[in-house]
Amino acid sequence: MDLETSPLALPFPDMPSIEGVTLRVARAGYKTWDRADLTFAELAEGTALAGVFTRNVCCSSEVEIGREQVKQGRARALVVNAGNSNAFTGYRGREAVEQIMAQVADALGCDKGEVLVSSTGVIGVPLPKDKAREGIAKVLEAEPASWEQAATTIGTTDTFAKGATTAAMLGDTRVTLNGIIKGSGMIAPDMATMLGYIFTDAAVEPAFLQQCLSQANAGTFSCITVDSDTSTSDTVLAFATGKAGNAPLASFDDPGADAFMAALTDMCRQLAHLVVRDGEGAQKFIAVSVTGAVSDESARRVGLAIANSPLVKTAIAGGDANWGRVVMAVGKAGEPADRDKLGIAFGGVWAAKQGLPVEGYDEAPVAKHLEGREIDITVDLGLGEGHATVWTCDLTHGYISINADYRS
Amino acid sequence: MDLETSPLALPFPDMPSIEGVTLRVARAGYKTWDRADLTFAELAEGTALAGVFTRNVCCSSEVEIGREQVKQGRARALVVNAGNSNAFTGYRGREAVEQIMAQVADALGCDKGEVLVSSTGVIGVPLPKDKAREGIAKVLEAEPASWEQAATTIGTTDTFAKGATTAAMLGDTRVTLNGIIKGSGMIAPDMATMLGYIFTDAAVEPAFLQQCLSQANAGTFSCITVDSDTSTSDTVLAFATGKAGNAPLASFDDPGADAFMAALTDMCRQLAHLVVRDGEGAQKFIAVSVTGAVSDESARRVGLAIANSPLVKTAIAGGDANWGRVVMAVGKAGEPADRDKLGIAFGGVWAAKQGLPVEGYDEAPVAKHLEGREIDITVDLGLGEGHATVWTCDLTHGYISINADYRS
Repeated sequence: MDLETSPLALPFPDMPSIEGVTLRVARAGYKTWDRADLTFAELAEGTALAGVFTRNVCCSSEVEIGREQVKQGRARALVVNAGNSNAFTGYRGREAVEQIMAQVADALGCDKGEVLVSSTGVIGVPLPKDKAREGIAKVLEAEPASWEQAATTIGTTDTFAKGATTAAMLGDTRVTLNGIIKGSGMIAPDMATMLGYIFTDAAVEPAFLQQCLSQANAGTFSCITVDSDTSTSDTVLAFATGKAGNAPLASFDDPGADAFMAALTDMCRQLAHLVVRDGEGAQKFIAVSVTGAVSDESARRVGLAIANSPLVKTAIAGGDANWGRVVMAVGKAGEPADRDKLGIAFGGVWAAKQGLPVEGYDEAPVAKHLEGREIDITVDLGLGEGHATVWTCDLTHGYISINADYRS
Repeated sequence: MDLETSPLALPFPDMPSIEGVTLRVARAGYKTWDRADLTFAELAEGTALAGVFTRNVCCSSEVEIGREQVKQGRARALVVNAGNSNAFTGYRGREAVEQIMAQVADALGCDKGEVLVSSTGVIGVPLPKDKAREGIAKVLEAEPASWEQAATTIGTTDTFAKGATTAAMLGDTRVTLNGIIKGSGMIAPDMATMLGYIFTDAAVEPAFLQQCLSQANAGTFSCITVDSDTSTSDTVLAFATGKAGNAPLASFDDPGADAFMAALTDMCRQLAHLVVRDGEGAQKFIAVSVTGAVSDESARRVGLAIANSPLVKTAIAGGDANWGRVVMAVGKAGEPADRDKLGIAFGGVWAAKQGLPVEGYDEAPVAKHLEGREIDITVDLGLGEGHATVWTCDLTHGYISINADYRS
């Protein structure tokens, strides 16, 4: 089926090149579609690597192998297959990944372990090795591609290409960060997976890059949800080519490390928001801010309970400031909460405070806020200092249409 | 809005009377609707009481008070208000409940603590005390009502009246169990709550009745889900009038205790299934059986992860044997699982075994099974002896229509 572009889509940004990164795309034909579906990034020697992966225990071979590669911390190439997730395919899936790694390592004269592979699409069908072999041969010969071409090629049922760019000053050295991402949870009939890739010319030691990425992930990718369904293949990788020439960052004590961390966090937040903006059937972008929790982690869990509640999400879809459903979601989160201290606001207007409806609460400005595309829900638990913000989209007929009305 | 009767509805059964239980209904007018909305059950002196309640920490005053009453173990009356859940209403809600308890206790000459009260409907509006007072006065004078009338009156947006009856032989004494129930999770725009009531003429000590009910609850009400949203007011109460004249049951060592437990479990399962059959927008009744888990509790959690997955539920709605989504749900459950030992079957036909699609898997009989109203999903984890079955319904456009398209 053809999906309409999300009403929450953003235009693809003007993205500068990153020294040490060359992108190429080709058509492997993993599905019967008339589009490029294989993305290749060649990375300068010495590029540092970090990654975070799905916690789904039924993960793909790509994720299993990637976890090992991240420990070693260096990358020379990235291959992304779109149209087949290669998940739940046992030893045959693993063989396909290893074939790709070997073929690329041969061509670049690098170690197999430095070739990262991701796949996204149908579950349970081993990635066809012949198509992969021909596709890799083609992509190695292809002309360099733009960031937008790469962002489009890694997509499956995404309705718009998603990229972001930012920069940081490390002392006198300006470093650039570019990111591309696809998906939004388990996104479509047989498709899956959020795949995100961040490239920077900054020089960063792998262990520190991993520390930064894990920390940035906690408040960004780990704080979004579309439908509560965690894919088997979610992957975010960061590549630092070092071509900017700054003194390599190895810890937060190094000059510029805080600026880099801030830029990386900003990048992750931008990419995470883009995924929510392409959530299945999404009509509204919802930020849920939780304050007054016993800890930040508790605030995040309460926020996710609200953001995952089908009743809260359908209320927002219907423009209904139904704070009773928010109360319900807070109460079921399994985290400390006291009904009689709870406050709930929509668009900054408090509907309930101290466990009671606010006297003379005027729903008019709230109703107006809920007509918009960007919805803010604030919940104050009144217990402590813990806080967190999570992001989600509403739940609409579009979600059902995408996932139930069409057969895979 | 008028909801059509669920296609999964069952006819109301022929329910015998229970000695020691008199039902009455009246119209308190909690909402502007033309129907009885106050249900009253008078119970013989000495009736034993047991109850299980929502785990939602933002629970209603009714639930808080009910928890205390269950500890004392005796009941003389039950009052159920429909149209207003009285949840999240602070001290004003509590006052309304206490007024009802006092009024009924006065009329019956019993202790306030022996009057159980439940409320279901809109959250955040204190139950109007004047309407409650007039309603109670009316219902105390009303003619006895039938089980079907009571089952209808406790309903809110339920599309059919839900009741069940069963019996057990305790030695030579036949005892009867009748149950009525409403709701299915957080069921409708502003409505909430599953409320279930079981009445028996068996003589059972309160502590043992509680033990039996808690045990029966674990494998029945705790194993159903419609939309993963736990209401603020869920309540199941059991009343045993003792009028059957059996030697009172006080432990599983007593003759007849096993038969009573089996009948009570059967009753709870029947009522739990009726709730799923009236799930919002439900078109299909889904049983998810998990075997080979490390424990029964782990099996239940994996089952609920599958049953709560919007992607699994929409796949079933679309008649799609999408076992990739089942793999995903198993993997995200947070329980021990090994991708390469996993087996998945629909309607008894294995689609995957040992972590791989079954060679020569014929989807035709599976597609036929998925066209029906009753769907079986079996997941074998291949790790241990733990097993559980959970029940849910599919996720359809009807759910979105009920919860988003209409304002509360």
